[in-house]
Amino acid sequence: MTAKPTRRGLIAATAAAGGLSGGASAAPASATAPLTIAAQGSYAAGGAVYDAPGTFDPHAFFSNTGGRNHGDHAYVRFQRPVKPRRLPLVLWHGGGQFMKTWESTPDGREGYDTLLLRRDWEVHLVDQPRRGGAGHANSTGAIETLRPIDKSLWHVFRLGVYPDFFPGGQFPQTPEAIDQYWRQRADDTGPEDQEVVVAGVSAVFDRIGRGVLITHSNSGKWGFVTAARNTHVRAVVSYEPGTIVVPEGYEPAPIDSADPMIQRITTPVVIPDAQFANLAKIPIQIVFGDNIPAAASPYAGLDFWRHVRARAYEFCALIRARGGDATVLELPKAGISGNTHFPFSDLNNVAVADELSAYLQSRKLDRYFEP
Amino acid sequence: MTAKPTRRGLIAATAAAGGLSGGASAAPASATAPLTIAAQGSYAAGGAVYDAPGTFDPHAFFSNTGGRNHGDHAYVRFQRPVKPRRLPLVLWHGGGQFMKTWESTPDGREGYDTLLLRRDWEVHLVDQPRRGGAGHANSTGAIETLRPIDKSLWHVFRLGVYPDFFPGGQFPQTPEAIDQYWRQRADDTGPEDQEVVVAGVSAVFDRIGRGVLITHSNSGKWGFVTAARNTHVRAVVSYEPGTIVVPEGYEPAPIDSADPMIQRITTPVVIPDAQFANLAKIPIQIVFGDNIPAAASPYAGLDFWRHVRARAYEFCALIRARGGDATVLELPKAGISGNTHFPFSDLNNVAVADELSAYLQSRKLDRYFEP
Repeated sequence: MTAKPTRRGLIAATAAAGGLSGGASAAPASATAPLTIAAQGSYAAGGAVYDAPGTFDPHAFFSNTGGRNHGDHAYVRFQRPVKPRRLPLVLWHGGGQFMKTWESTPDGREGYDTLLLRRDWEVHLVDQPRRGGAGHANSTGAIETLRPIDKSLWHVFRLGVYPDFFPGGQFPQTPEAIDQYWRQRADDTGPEDQEVVVAGVSAVFDRIGRGVLITHSNSGKWGFVTAARNTHVRAVVSYEPGTIVVPEGYEPAPIDSADPMIQRITTPVVIPDAQFANLAKIPIQIVFGDNIPAAASPYAGLDFWRHVRARAYEFCALIRARGGDATVLELPKAGISGNTHFPFSDLNNVAVADELSAYLQSRKLDRYFEP
Repeated sequence: MTAKPTRRGLIAATAAAGGLSGGASAAPASATAPLTIAAQGSYAAGGAVYDAPGTFDPHAFFSNTGGRNHGDHAYVRFQRPVKPRRLPLVLWHGGGQFMKTWESTPDGREGYDTLLLRRDWEVHLVDQPRRGGAGHANSTGAIETLRPIDKSLWHVFRLGVYPDFFPGGQFPQTPEAIDQYWRQRADDTGPEDQEVVVAGVSAVFDRIGRGVLITHSNSGKWGFVTAARNTHVRAVVSYEPGTIVVPEGYEPAPIDSADPMIQRITTPVVIPDAQFANLAKIPIQIVFGDNIPAAASPYAGLDFWRHVRARAYEFCALIRARGGDATVLELPKAGISGNTHFPFSDLNNVAVADELSAYLQSRKLDRYFEP
């Protein structure tokens, strides 16, 4: 059965899109100096091979037996500036998202992919296995069907209380930008499995060597798992990680919420103590935007963040107790206000990127190759 | 139920990937002059909005009623050179593929995305609705589960007879390249629907204005439908279109094959005569590679192409009968041999791109903006 969508008029869609890219005849929305790129491309990383039982029939158009499938890899696009800094940046999207997260903002400005390239970083954008360009799975069975949750995500992504925006918010409040924003999402083509997605992103680091991992939301916890396992990950900057990782045996602080989704999403991921210890060997920064409620909120999608932020501080205390370097940056405390759950694509994303640059510099992660 | 894949060792995966992108410390596989880019980015085009019945509950984390979903758009990435030619190129992947088709080749050389950018074309890469980065659907119901068809596609994509390659073939015959090649695929997240995918790509042209549409394989027929409906499409170059479009009332030549897949895939798409007439107003080139059997082949995946090619000539005759300009380029007849179903990413893809450049020049489609 197919749902009956309301198809938008093409004329309206065209008008809505006009400000973003007008083709060769229109100037780009954010006119800046040309980019100079030494190399760019894409690749698959990791993955598995599935061999079906039986004997392959080469004569059939599609053999019903003995076939093979290459799936469960990560898909990566990269760009390398002419004089790159030593450590590449690997950017991993959040739940229901793909690498579009880091590309053009909903209102067509430059995203982190291009902003960071301009700052001499080699950038690798990841689609996790079974999502987006990595949407070729080795799994069978039902996947998520149509889930109309855009209005609910309005709260979870902290635009405001639907359909209103928070006063002073940094989300571009035009119908066109809102439309583009909701179209950043991509459905899974198989179950979202920790071991599959961590293996895929870990394979990226095995390929490129040492680098800095930047995560967002749902990839936060898995980025920590990846860094705990793969020593090529030399630092983690995590934008609003949905939850944290803890060592075996640790009893996390109780969450004072009866909401089952909040309970579920904020449940920490448990990893072996020896792996957790690796997280104390690298710099870790966790970044939060604005409008996180200070006290209980009647909106579960907003109240969620109060608990997430508490978890983040709990995580940093655990790391620091092991002599590590884990800190929380609350952007409002740095004088940067109004940010949503996507600070890197908000209207002030250049200021947010400045905080990233400052952090990487403070940890001496931004060095160039020796001349 | 989840299939049990054979997980490849990370070390092997790393070694396999080594030649493609070594991170900042390794030279790119195809070292050439730096690229200079005026603008780059990504956007969604077209799509629909689904509104669920009932009243939205703003307090729930995910409201079970009254929700909304933005889906069924195309996803597009573009790059604009500093001095672009007047008409952008829009590149549309084939069946089971996504924009990776046009990116880095399986052995890590530059794909059409970068090769054409170097030739001063503004390039827009499309993921059709419900695929890859456009994998957010407004549809419900079952989608394709694990189909292990890589060995069968060895024939359909004309690498050779599995597991052998055709002698003198232009596919990069390394295990690493083969692995990357099969990981170019992406599963659908909803039914592949002509009206949905044509609307998505048509919205790209409504946004960018006049341009040239380049299709491959399964998008061939839909590219013709798009061009027949949207006058912004000023030319079509179609690499090995799976089948053709014909006007209402036309009886296509019978296919002398009992294979149900060949019968099904080569069945022409029927469009109104007035729309078909529009195809006689623009230049159309259909390009075929090598190793298409001259006589019946016992391998259905190869024999398929004999019928496809015959259909292409049938289509061009129909267009020319209406005074149009539709031609077939068989690369071997131009002295370019060994090409697979993916000529634009084969080892000789620069020579194949030269044919594209020559064609666009011959039709005066490659002009720059007036100074």
